Amino acid sequence: MIIILKPGISRKQENAVTSEIRKRGYRPHIMRGVARTVIGAIGDELTHQSLETLAMLFPQVVESITPVQKRYKLISREAHPENSTVKVGAHFIGGKKLHVMAGPCSVESEKQLLKTAHAVKAAGATVLRGGAFKPRTSPYEFQGLGERALKLLAKARKETGLAVITELLSENHAELVAEYADILQIGARNSQNFQLLIAAAKTGKPILLKRGLSMKIEEWLLAGEYVLSNENCSLMFCERGIRTFETYTRNTLDLSTIPIIKKESHCPIVIDPSQGAGRADLVKAMCRGAVAMGADALLIEVHPEPAKAWSDGTQQVSLEVFAELMRELRPLILASGRE
Amino acid sequence: MIIILKPGISRKQENAVTSEIRKRGYRPHIMRGVARTVIGAIGDELTHQSLETLAMLFPQVVESITPVQKRYKLISREAHPENSTVKVGAHFIGGKKLHVMAGPCSVESEKQLLKTAHAVKAAGATVLRGGAFKPRTSPYEFQGLGERALKLLAKARKETGLAVITELLSENHAELVAEYADILQIGARNSQNFQLLIAAAKTGKPILLKRGLSMKIEEWLLAGEYVLSNENCSLMFCERGIRTFETYTRNTLDLSTIPIIKKESHCPIVIDPSQGAGRADLVKAMCRGAVAMGADALLIEVHPEPAKAWSDGTQQVSLEVFAELMRELRPLILASGRE
Amino acid sequence: MIIILKPGISRKQENAVTSEIRKRGYRPHIMRGVARTVIGAIGDELTHQSLETLAMLFPQVVESITPVQKRYKLISREAHPENSTVKVGAHFIGGKKLHVMAGPCSVESEKQLLKTAHAVKAAGATVLRGGAFKPRTSPYEFQGLGERALKLLAKARKETGLAVITELLSENHAELVAEYADILQIGARNSQNFQLLIAAAKTGKPILLKRGLSMKIEEWLLAGEYVLSNENCSLMFCERGIRTFETYTRNTLDLSTIPIIKKESHCPIVIDPSQGAGRADLVKAMCRGAVAMGADALLIEVHPEPAKAWSDGTQQVSLEVFAELMRELRPLILASGRE
Amino acid sequence: MIIILKPGISRKQENAVTSEIRKRGYRPHIMRGVARTVIGAIGDELTHQSLETLAMLFPQVVESITPVQKRYKLISREAHPENSTVKVGAHFIGGKKLHVMAGPCSVESEKQLLKTAHAVKAAGATVLRGGAFKPRTSPYEFQGLGERALKLLAKARKETGLAVITELLSENHAELVAEYADILQIGARNSQNFQLLIAAAKTGKPILLKRGLSMKIEEWLLAGEYVLSNENCSLMFCERGIRTFETYTRNTLDLSTIPIIKKESHCPIVIDPSQGAGRADLVKAMCRGAVAMGADALLIEVHPEPAKAWSDGTQQVSLEVFAELMRELRPLILASGRE
Repeated sequence: MIIILKPGISRKQENAVTSEIRKRGYRPHIMRGVARTVIGAIGDELTHQSLETLAMLFPQVVESITPVQKRYKLISREAHPENSTVKVGAHFIGGKKLHVMAGPCSVESEKQLLKTAHAVKAAGATVLRGGAFKPRTSPYEFQGLGERALKLLAKARKETGLAVITELLSENHAELVAEYADILQIGARNSQNFQLLIAAAKTGKPILLKRGLSMKIEEWLLAGEYVLSNENCSLMFCERGIRTFETYTRNTLDLSTIPIIKKESHCPIVIDPSQGAGRADLVKAMCRGAVAMGADALLIEVHPEPAKAWSDGTQQVSLEVFAELMRELRPLILASGRE
Repeated sequence: MIIILKPGISRKQENAVTSEIRKRGYRPHIMRGVARTVIGAIGDELTHQSLETLAMLFPQVVESITPVQKRYKLISREAHPENSTVKVGAHFIGGKKLHVMAGPCSVESEKQLLKTAHAVKAAGATVLRGGAFKPRTSPYEFQGLGERALKLLAKARKETGLAVITELLSENHAELVAEYADILQIGARNSQNFQLLIAAAKTGKPILLKRGLSMKIEEWLLAGEYVLSNENCSLMFCERGIRTFETYTRNTLDLSTIPIIKKESHCPIVIDPSQGAGRADLVKAMCRGAVAMGADALLIEVHPEPAKAWSDGTQQVSLEVFAELMRELRPLILASGRE
Repeated sequence: MIIILKPGISRKQENAVTSEIRKRGYRPHIMRGVARTVIGAIGDELTHQSLETLAMLFPQVVESITPVQKRYKLISREAHPENSTVKVGAHFIGGKKLHVMAGPCSVESEKQLLKTAHAVKAAGATVLRGGAFKPRTSPYEFQGLGERALKLLAKARKETGLAVITELLSENHAELVAEYADILQIGARNSQNFQLLIAAAKTGKPILLKRGLSMKIEEWLLAGEYVLSNENCSLMFCERGIRTFETYTRNTLDLSTIPIIKKESHCPIVIDPSQGAGRADLVKAMCRGAVAMGADALLIEVHPEPAKAWSDGTQQVSLEVFAELMRELRPLILASGRE
Repeated sequence: MIIILKPGISRKQENAVTSEIRKRGYRPHIMRGVARTVIGAIGDELTHQSLETLAMLFPQVVESITPVQKRYKLISREAHPENSTVKVGAHFIGGKKLHVMAGPCSVESEKQLLKTAHAVKAAGATVLRGGAFKPRTSPYEFQGLGERALKLLAKARKETGLAVITELLSENHAELVAEYADILQIGARNSQNFQLLIAAAKTGKPILLKRGLSMKIEEWLLAGEYVLSNENCSLMFCERGIRTFETYTRNTLDLSTIPIIKKESHCPIVIDPSQGAGRADLVKAMCRGAVAMGADALLIEVHPEPAKAWSDGTQQVSLEVFAELMRELRPLILASGRE
């Protein structure tokens, strides 16, 4: 911890601070600068009591306090210098092959789901997405088909060989969803629902953790740390757009998260351009950028008839557009050194 | 629904749109303007299928779609023109009397809690706050004393007569927390954890719903609608600061929510200046503003020794500062026409 | 400057950094911590070359660099511990008396302006506001009456004794506007137009500096520093709402700026609730909060017929509402210890 | 304009509104819906008086008012369905060839500039950037070499054949800067300094308009409209990151602006990854994304010794990294169908 004192502090005031620092198990180290004095508090910040409250204890003396150590451990690149990969069925996400997860926002019917599954499989996807339990802003909107949807997803997996990803909304559903799904998705609204993260981690299933609407990188990494510290290391981060002042798009897709997550962590990074822009007409361009910047996977909403979708119709692409997108991405994937 | 068409649309294209509008149960009503044609779709938006996907079905024809009805019902001022009050013990929040809820961020020990409870009671508070289950950004931070804290809160209530508010973090704790607390607090990170909102509502206890870090007013009202539509009308909204680009304060306390919630809804509005600013030195000024603008209650973090607090020490005020604050607020409360 | 090194750095790498620090005129001071080594660079940061590029020079070695000194000087409370007051005509803004500046968004006609001036004077205002040169988002919107408006403002001053504030948009108008106005307003869009700030400062007139739409506190103080460092110490800060994700209001009025500016600087702070909310129906509540929190002045848009205003009609209050507001504020002003 | 009335409005109240609509030159058209009545006001919104103040005139009756027409004209894709290109020396920006503009943040010396110019030319750049007048947050920071820098830029152009882009800060410098530069850059802080935009437009030189820190797409297009409506159609938009809550990067580079500007406007779009991320280590990834998504040009800060740069050293890349970046981009440029 670095404690910066205000200008013009007496030796007596300084001693009061250093004595408190010692009491909390740190060794104070004083540097007298030209304008101010700075104290380094030497000791392990992760095991000792925090010093941040010194500013309160000595409001006339202490200007600011800065931690020196990072707050996350298991999730950090330092802890695991190689890329980690997540095994999903026969596939490894985070390796050389770029994966595409695709499917409808909500599972609506057997026909809708199977038609989509066959089409996205044919176009090259390896994972089928589909909402069974839906978190909806209004209580009067369609809340998902629940367990019936899970069963349809399992049927689609059996028919197509695609792995299945679906959202987990409630601690009480963790066992149930884990029984049917290959990847548990934690949505943006639950990204700091730590009880849910722990429940999901404990199922042992791979987890895709979406970034919260106004989540800082450090908070996202720490939410991931909840998963790894509960003995589950199959974690993927998923950027899906953050909330800004801009209203042209539903969210602002922050593609800089791709190099940032790769730098700070060893876990794979997935991009969701559908939620990110909230507009089907921007999905293709977003996918192109994500691929070129090194995303490990894409998560794309696809629907046989987007205009008739029961939820989020404006951001889902049709089966034809999806097939076209997959064809167009191919040269870019190769030019980016992926498969 | 109002559907705005692009310029230069043929009568045939227009007919395709109106025929689809009819199919979904609305009656189309055409207005030909100088630059564009606008279609009004007449029908109940809350019971009919949404028209928002028309933009996808006719991307060359439809420019934009705007709903006419508000999405919230029970929570709205229109549904209940009078202010509603929430009964907590012998008190009514939302009436003429301004209430103050105060206490430590986390319950740490019997001594800490009882000392605080007696002091805030003496200074004029009517509700005791204290965290038992704590949502922490990092898994390595103090997570709360759990049920032991709940028992201490109950003991403090018995000794002082203060009502008790504490945060509910998990659906699985709803019964347990409701057994001890008079008000269930839903924190900012769980403000769109709809399963938790439903579980809380079903206990029948009064609920204090904090605004999410980047929650729009409409989303906040709709989250409240989850409570009322699950047969619990004892709801209070609590503004605790939103996330902006500013880093001087931890959050930006949005005091305009006071007149806005009063205008849009009948439920009481509570202000949390401690989380709002994240700095104890700004709490007094924030409270002054909140009182003058018509807040129904204040939620203030108070600790006997803020500098030694186990969590969020920098934003808690001492017992002395709290007593002083309460004295200073008095003339302002009277000048604002409250008690 | 505090330089934090990465974990596991060799003595040789460390020496390379300290030798560079010495080259730039600082004295390095090493602290070896448990997890990392920290170097304090002792020297005056305002006169020596910055060390921030060390991170680039030694990307494998340096983790982060933190300045110790504040970047602003003349504007800071440390430079001038007393409140400074700004003399405007016979008045002093920043003293015990709370001032109200009121008038139309745009000057539209002699009749409109004089009617407003007499009314706001009668209600208790001491300064008349009125836009002569208007910065408009679209080139097709009304751009202000220019010099004709300045002459009308001067006439209104002569008739009523009110001082005059109006916006300065262009360096080329600085002399002209200074000839007619008692206070030069720098608008939010020009808050970092440093050439304009310098031109305004050089007129010697009092300056009201609005906060930019996404301006951090530190940037605002530094923009003010441009005025004071150009030999003009008659500066007032004016909060007028920041841009956030919320769309219910046009901007989010950040009332916490009142205690913050008072803490960091000696200059007066003015609140503009009209721009802040962008809704006339919220102006009263905002004014109440601003007064209770210690604002030195209010800047309110008032129009004889808001619904017919040539610009920003939705945020201007009528003469009647203004008079009522002034009456209602009185007890609050007294309860806040102001006149 | 679409005027939505509140529920339960009498025929008399409705008539008052329609009569006012007629007075302002529009023809009212009434639609009675299930829950509310909606009025369409038929007439040209760009030439008639605005109706937005109806909400003020009839606060008990009118719920909301929505414009139907877009506010921008000349800049819109509708006005000019083909891509427009901007001629800079012998080059056309906006055509099939992707252009790279590169050079130091600030011009510091002849040696620094010429060395950079030769290197970026050799690596494939076609335009040389270099700051002569610098807008700096603090008055105590280096403000640029001014006219001396302009002369050095002209010299570098003569030696290398590169075109020159530099920032225009002041209306008073418009003639001077236009004498030396091939493209005038309007910086983010001046993006709504309309007087500067007009002065720049009148020089007849190509203009690169950066997006403001919290500028909405519509405001950006309207700022561009100031250029085109002042008879200068050589406009390029430049995304350089917006301000969000995230602090890991200096700004959040919004790459979705590429497809959006292409959709809404005919003008070229340029991406500035250096300002966008504020971190040299993210520049490469950002460039890859920009190229894949269809940017017409890149604007990259390059310095022979970034660690010794007089301004913004942390975001400039070295000559070696730049050359490497240009090599790596090549396959991606081809895979994106550009040259």
